[in-house]
Amino acid sequence: MKSPIPDYLRQVLEKARPDDSGQLANYIDVLAKADPSKMAIALSTVDGNLYSAGDDEVEFSIQSISKAFVYAIAIEDAGLPRVLEKIGVEPSGDAFNKLSLQPGTNRPMNPMINAGAIAAHTLVAGESASAEERVDHILKVLSKLAGRQLKVDEEVYEAELKDANRNMAIGYMLKAAGIISCDPQDAVRGYIRQGSITTNVRDLAMMAATLANAGVNPITGEEIMPHQSARQVLSVMTTCGMYDAAGDWVSRVGMPAKSGVAGGIIGALPGQVGIAVFSPKLDERGNSFRGVKMFEQLSSEMGLHMMDISQVGRATVRTWTLTIAGGAKQPDEREQEVPVFGLRGAVRFAGSERLTRAIVRELTPPNPDDPGSGRHADASAVIFSLKDTYSLNYVALRIISEDMRRLLAADKNVVVIDPVKVLKIDGNPAFKEKSPCVVNDEAEARRYIGGQGCRAVSHSDEFY
Amino acid sequence: MKSPIPDYLRQVLEKARPDDSGQLANYIDVLAKADPSKMAIALSTVDGNLYSAGDDEVEFSIQSISKAFVYAIAIEDAGLPRVLEKIGVEPSGDAFNKLSLQPGTNRPMNPMINAGAIAAHTLVAGESASAEERVDHILKVLSKLAGRQLKVDEEVYEAELKDANRNMAIGYMLKAAGIISCDPQDAVRGYIRQGSITTNVRDLAMMAATLANAGVNPITGEEIMPHQSARQVLSVMTTCGMYDAAGDWVSRVGMPAKSGVAGGIIGALPGQVGIAVFSPKLDERGNSFRGVKMFEQLSSEMGLHMMDISQVGRATVRTWTLTIAGGAKQPDEREQEVPVFGLRGAVRFAGSERLTRAIVRELTPPNPDDPGSGRHADASAVIFSLKDTYSLNYVALRIISEDMRRLLAADKNVVVIDPVKVLKIDGNPAFKEKSPCVVNDEAEARRYIGGQGCRAVSHSDEFY
Amino acid sequence: MKSPIPDYLRQVLEKARPDDSGQLANYIDVLAKADPSKMAIALSTVDGNLYSAGDDEVEFSIQSISKAFVYAIAIEDAGLPRVLEKIGVEPSGDAFNKLSLQPGTNRPMNPMINAGAIAAHTLVAGESASAEERVDHILKVLSKLAGRQLKVDEEVYEAELKDANRNMAIGYMLKAAGIISCDPQDAVRGYIRQGSITTNVRDLAMMAATLANAGVNPITGEEIMPHQSARQVLSVMTTCGMYDAAGDWVSRVGMPAKSGVAGGIIGALPGQVGIAVFSPKLDERGNSFRGVKMFEQLSSEMGLHMMDISQVGRATVRTWTLTIAGGAKQPDEREQEVPVFGLRGAVRFAGSERLTRAIVRELTPPNPDDPGSGRHADASAVIFSLKDTYSLNYVALRIISEDMRRLLAADKNVVVIDPVKVLKIDGNPAFKEKSPCVVNDEAEARRYIGGQGCRAVSHSDEFY
Amino acid sequence: MKSPIPDYLRQVLEKARPDDSGQLANYIDVLAKADPSKMAIALSTVDGNLYSAGDDEVEFSIQSISKAFVYAIAIEDAGLPRVLEKIGVEPSGDAFNKLSLQPGTNRPMNPMINAGAIAAHTLVAGESASAEERVDHILKVLSKLAGRQLKVDEEVYEAELKDANRNMAIGYMLKAAGIISCDPQDAVRGYIRQGSITTNVRDLAMMAATLANAGVNPITGEEIMPHQSARQVLSVMTTCGMYDAAGDWVSRVGMPAKSGVAGGIIGALPGQVGIAVFSPKLDERGNSFRGVKMFEQLSSEMGLHMMDISQVGRATVRTWTLTIAGGAKQPDEREQEVPVFGLRGAVRFAGSERLTRAIVRELTPPNPDDPGSGRHADASAVIFSLKDTYSLNYVALRIISEDMRRLLAADKNVVVIDPVKVLKIDGNPAFKEKSPCVVNDEAEARRYIGGQGCRAVSHSDEFY
Repeated sequence: MKSPIPDYLRQVLEKARPDDSGQLANYIDVLAKADPSKMAIALSTVDGNLYSAGDDEVEFSIQSISKAFVYAIAIEDAGLPRVLEKIGVEPSGDAFNKLSLQPGTNRPMNPMINAGAIAAHTLVAGESASAEERVDHILKVLSKLAGRQLKVDEEVYEAELKDANRNMAIGYMLKAAGIISCDPQDAVRGYIRQGSITTNVRDLAMMAATLANAGVNPITGEEIMPHQSARQVLSVMTTCGMYDAAGDWVSRVGMPAKSGVAGGIIGALPGQVGIAVFSPKLDERGNSFRGVKMFEQLSSEMGLHMMDISQVGRATVRTWTLTIAGGAKQPDEREQEVPVFGLRGAVRFAGSERLTRAIVRELTPPNPDDPGSGRHADASAVIFSLKDTYSLNYVALRIISEDMRRLLAADKNVVVIDPVKVLKIDGNPAFKEKSPCVVNDEAEARRYIGGQGCRAVSHSDEFY
Repeated sequence: MKSPIPDYLRQVLEKARPDDSGQLANYIDVLAKADPSKMAIALSTVDGNLYSAGDDEVEFSIQSISKAFVYAIAIEDAGLPRVLEKIGVEPSGDAFNKLSLQPGTNRPMNPMINAGAIAAHTLVAGESASAEERVDHILKVLSKLAGRQLKVDEEVYEAELKDANRNMAIGYMLKAAGIISCDPQDAVRGYIRQGSITTNVRDLAMMAATLANAGVNPITGEEIMPHQSARQVLSVMTTCGMYDAAGDWVSRVGMPAKSGVAGGIIGALPGQVGIAVFSPKLDERGNSFRGVKMFEQLSSEMGLHMMDISQVGRATVRTWTLTIAGGAKQPDEREQEVPVFGLRGAVRFAGSERLTRAIVRELTPPNPDDPGSGRHADASAVIFSLKDTYSLNYVALRIISEDMRRLLAADKNVVVIDPVKVLKIDGNPAFKEKSPCVVNDEAEARRYIGGQGCRAVSHSDEFY
Repeated sequence: MKSPIPDYLRQVLEKARPDDSGQLANYIDVLAKADPSKMAIALSTVDGNLYSAGDDEVEFSIQSISKAFVYAIAIEDAGLPRVLEKIGVEPSGDAFNKLSLQPGTNRPMNPMINAGAIAAHTLVAGESASAEERVDHILKVLSKLAGRQLKVDEEVYEAELKDANRNMAIGYMLKAAGIISCDPQDAVRGYIRQGSITTNVRDLAMMAATLANAGVNPITGEEIMPHQSARQVLSVMTTCGMYDAAGDWVSRVGMPAKSGVAGGIIGALPGQVGIAVFSPKLDERGNSFRGVKMFEQLSSEMGLHMMDISQVGRATVRTWTLTIAGGAKQPDEREQEVPVFGLRGAVRFAGSERLTRAIVRELTPPNPDDPGSGRHADASAVIFSLKDTYSLNYVALRIISEDMRRLLAADKNVVVIDPVKVLKIDGNPAFKEKSPCVVNDEAEARRYIGGQGCRAVSHSDEFY
Repeated sequence: MKSPIPDYLRQVLEKARPDDSGQLANYIDVLAKADPSKMAIALSTVDGNLYSAGDDEVEFSIQSISKAFVYAIAIEDAGLPRVLEKIGVEPSGDAFNKLSLQPGTNRPMNPMINAGAIAAHTLVAGESASAEERVDHILKVLSKLAGRQLKVDEEVYEAELKDANRNMAIGYMLKAAGIISCDPQDAVRGYIRQGSITTNVRDLAMMAATLANAGVNPITGEEIMPHQSARQVLSVMTTCGMYDAAGDWVSRVGMPAKSGVAGGIIGALPGQVGIAVFSPKLDERGNSFRGVKMFEQLSSEMGLHMMDISQVGRATVRTWTLTIAGGAKQPDEREQEVPVFGLRGAVRFAGSERLTRAIVRELTPPNPDDPGSGRHADASAVIFSLKDTYSLNYVALRIISEDMRRLLAADKNVVVIDPVKVLKIDGNPAFKEKSPCVVNDEAEARRYIGGQGCRAVSHSDEFY
């Protein structure tokens, strides 16, 4: 069977093709002579599957899309506090090439306008780095993000450099304001060079997917930036990525994004996908005209709007009862009905809350207003089944551990079926006094409650 | 067992208590004499469980928090296109009481500043509605959101009205700009009255949870606003809810939010929770000082930042094999090994993509570079298990249906275990030619493949 | 002989007539239906001669031209310090109906924009005055300025009041900012009423001439405002009178001016003329299109640009010698050659300096480099002829008095021919020790130096 | 006798000395180490008398004061239309070092802010001029203005160049906006060099006096710039010279002015004086603190406010009667009473109007309401005495010529006593048909009317 996903992407692309509105960027010849008929789209899942359609091998300069990644590199190299001291995070409401220094602090409003991006560029690779070192470092990281060696388009670089007066102005203004410490001309040249790196939509989709995957390259598994950096970059892309239409973009598309003047746009939805589109003609805001159309389709059809309730998987809780016969040691013992609480999916606060509620309902005395409650008020053992639990975040771990601690404190037997060890036992303060018994499957749980000890576990489920 | 969640909220609250910085709003006496020691926090899950801590019965005026809900009502009553014609969605970078009309359109920048909120107020209940009718309608909807009858604090209303010069100015300016059509004094009086409605944190948490639950009240199950309205409100809260610090709030807290001058703040995370906090002293931006602290804690500890990868539950795919004996009709038939593809959780694009990938891997000829591939290249039947599938969004439904269509076209038997009917068959264009057989459980699937027909299904799983 | 001046004005008017560009103000019907073919011009000298041409009897509403005069009334009624506390004097660069409150002080930028003009209106007639009292007082003063009883056009007033939303907005904003203390609606109604007073160009030319004449009505001689108020009004008209084109107007026309939306413009050149023009069609800045053309002609042809050097009359100094025979008492005495210093015109610093220079040159020992110097180094008497001196300002009086004091201290006879008493002797600190002898004419000066005493003087010269 | 004027300046200076508020400019070391106790004042009349007091030989860098003169040079070298195309004339309300490009045109707001001044600098000496040529030309013109060879302070230049980032930014922004065509670094270096020229207050007072004298150096008599340029410069200084306080300065001081960061300020009052002050400590606007105080004193005490009515000398008209006996040819003729109209001072429109009024009054039939009128209704001859007329501007010449034409047309004898030939006869269209007889003095007028012909005239009056 052939996957229908490339077919779907092709449909998105063809639906956007008929309207060839917009204008090629014409401030430099090399952009003005781009082929306006080229169109491409690519999508990478956070586990590294890359689909594409259209002219997906056509290369174009990354331009302002580099700003998002260089901001991440700056955070890595200089630390977030220093980066925040030099560059704000507020939308400017201005066009991309405005100075927009914040009154008082003199910081550029955000790293997605040129002023902030030039400042971010100079924070790469340490204060004493030369321009070459900064660009080399950026090229190296972007190549790791893309998963192949990228390079600078020297023709674009030379052309941009000739038209760099406004950026030079910004560079000197930043120097005057104490925001950058290196030579302004060096800073601007390096910044222009970073934007002259060429990519295709497949490269960009991989790069975006790395942001969506908390900084880990979905294919190589390498952590290219810490997850806090990825979160910061995505936050700033949300409010500042599409220039002077932050609110409009968030309302209509609802995804952190960044566009470049050569016609590329990337979008990244945390935990899901990285997307890249390409079409050289620009709308009046300087974003790819057809690119925006493709993103609007993807958002509405694929349900990728981050304010859409469907974005969030609901971790589910299921309760059932296991009847366990008396163990071998105590052959005269009565069978017992042991409640099992099964927890599925990625569990955050909401899931842990649902679990807690289920436990309270089953184990406290029956409530006349709630007919099904109190069914296991007298249970002497409780089983938690975490074998379908994908992950527990900090607060979920804390709340579930506290649930177990309270049960243990009430002298219940607590057994956890946790073959992949999502529940941290070691060092967990809830388990300082007593620990639950962790088992590999229901059979072991049965054996344990029936009287045997715990066994080592191993993991065999196959996940795609 | 007692739930640990209220204890957790209490910890959040106590951690924020020691720093009593900030100032009471002092422009009217009734706010200036608020008790600055009061603090409260409440949290409602999207399935309607409400937790709270602190002074959760203390009532205070809703103030600007009403703007978010009245914007939703305006969308419902006047339609989104008309609302967008009158009120923008861009962050203004200005303080809340600035005019901030957009050059050109004269629209208020967004519905979270006073100008936009007054405009939104006038779009409630139809153009011919009187001021009383607008306020009555708002009070009715807010009461439904809160789940109890709310009322206006007349003392607050009278005091605000005496200090309403700036809002009156805004009202007349809106009238002059053609944004509102009713009498400006009426508009402002109604707007002030809407902000004088009193609530406690439990009310507000329920209201926020309704936004997070796509407009459906988590307890009553009533759809109070369409999910598109809820999405629009959350989008605008993301970029404009916290006044002149949109970027900062998105970076640090990462949750759509709205604050009021009486000391309340609400936050809503789609598909998860609605949160409300209260503490009357305000920071220099006019947001509750301790309220902001509590939100920062909740965001970092509870992992509620919307750019956090952990926010998104990963739908999982599992593959196993069912050995099915020849049916009664064909006693001589060999046993067959049927591949089963199990899909769990809320499935969006990513989940459907993972499923597709698994199918392709199992059913196409073995790939020498991928040792486990091609194991069922010759299978004559395929089972999809959707019994643990919580939901399928539009694109996921489309892709999975297309997978099935291709298998059916290749003359495979396709059986879907789908007790709760998440897969739409009726009217699905993929199944115009041939349909899969939908069954209730594995036993039925076995029977069908073994030679029997399909049976009707019923649903019995208990979900919390 | 018929005066050619009305003919000249007629030429100015006809030269501007052919270009009927511009638009009638159309925000209210009564202005939109004005006859666009009407044109008029009037000019009053500071000594009260009024010339006019065109439709000089056509009445139109004074509109914003009233702002200049009401500012003067506010200064008179509330005092300049209080007026400056409430209203700035800086050009705003904004259109006339912008709020333009100064950051920090919240003051309207200047009294020529609506916000400042409304504030000025409320400072008329004392804080406790009613709206009627304010308007009555303004009407009374404007009538005195025009030299005839003016009245309000009720049709204009009613129409403007219906379209007053923006001004109402401004009124409330001023109230909120603490700039005005009365009811905002009253303030705006009074302000609109003041602008609905009707005038013709002859009225306005007289009113402008009063400003140019330091606040004294050129015909009645009544001091309607102190000269400091007139100076302040003219200063503010210079930088703020023509809205957002202060610099352009000062460069091209060079005269304090104020325009009104009904098509009138006044200009006032201190010490010279008041001018008014009228033509209802407005340019894109809201100034009368033909009115501006007429002012440009008047400025370039009549040399009325205030930065034109020809604006300033040069007071002249002339020196000659009087041969005086010995007096009767000393018949044997030799004739003496007495230097006479004649000073003509309005003498300010420059004239007094020139005089001083002449005295030093004549009375100090001859300088070999300056052949004509030192001719009266031995003179025992000096005559000052002030009979052609029009006026002495403060510094000129001070310097000339000091010249005389030094001559008296050197035991010279100092005689002043000063029939109109421009030189103040009484209370002049320079003359505490010795006083010059003041005489009526040269004959008396001769007699005095020849040995007789001083005689009383009388004034007979006839000035136009 | 010693002139009291230096004593007066000394008093002004000493009155300002006690308050040593303000701060030295500290952005470069060479300014930060200036001696804050130095103070000086100088004043030059438009006829070239220079007075000074205090540290009048102390040299300091001219800084922004150069902007006024370089603007004049740019107008001379590139023409006013091109200069206006590149640089606006509107006050910016911003600090001196803001970009303040006008929306739409991208022009710097005015030539007194750095952006406009850098643009003006590049318009000097032709588009193909090198940076050296521009600076050489500026230095040459400034030296002519000062009346001595000025030079650049290399230490200041080097220090400013090191701190030039903001100006470099402005330079590149101007280049990007298409305002300047040369290399931005060259432009900024030249601009900094022009500001590093050193001067003392005596130099600056002479330079200011040249502006006040319509572009003619008062001492050398050389026309250094056309009077239109001087007028343009003074106009722009009026609205933009004192940065963000144009209105305040015009109200309080009322004189075109320009300040520099080294502590100098110049002021120029057209037709009167040029003034310069020096004191290095600056107020918060960057103007010399004591310098502003000295200007305020000079304005109020010396009556130098340009909106002061006393600024304008009133040309005066005097009428008397000459009794002329019958001439030799007609011995039997009766004596005739001939009216004489004497006109004194600098005559502009107002003077010519007064004269016209006098003629009409005397020569038309008696008006019963005006007892003195119609006294010469039957006169066959009229004498105009222009011997005390300092000048006639364009409109005055035109009106007086027209008066004469009308009298000649009515067959009156018209005789003009005009020893210095202020009345243009040649080519005057009023005299195409008939000309008045121009004579040198009253005796000649008598002879002419008595029957003799006209004689050649010569000029002998001595004016200071």
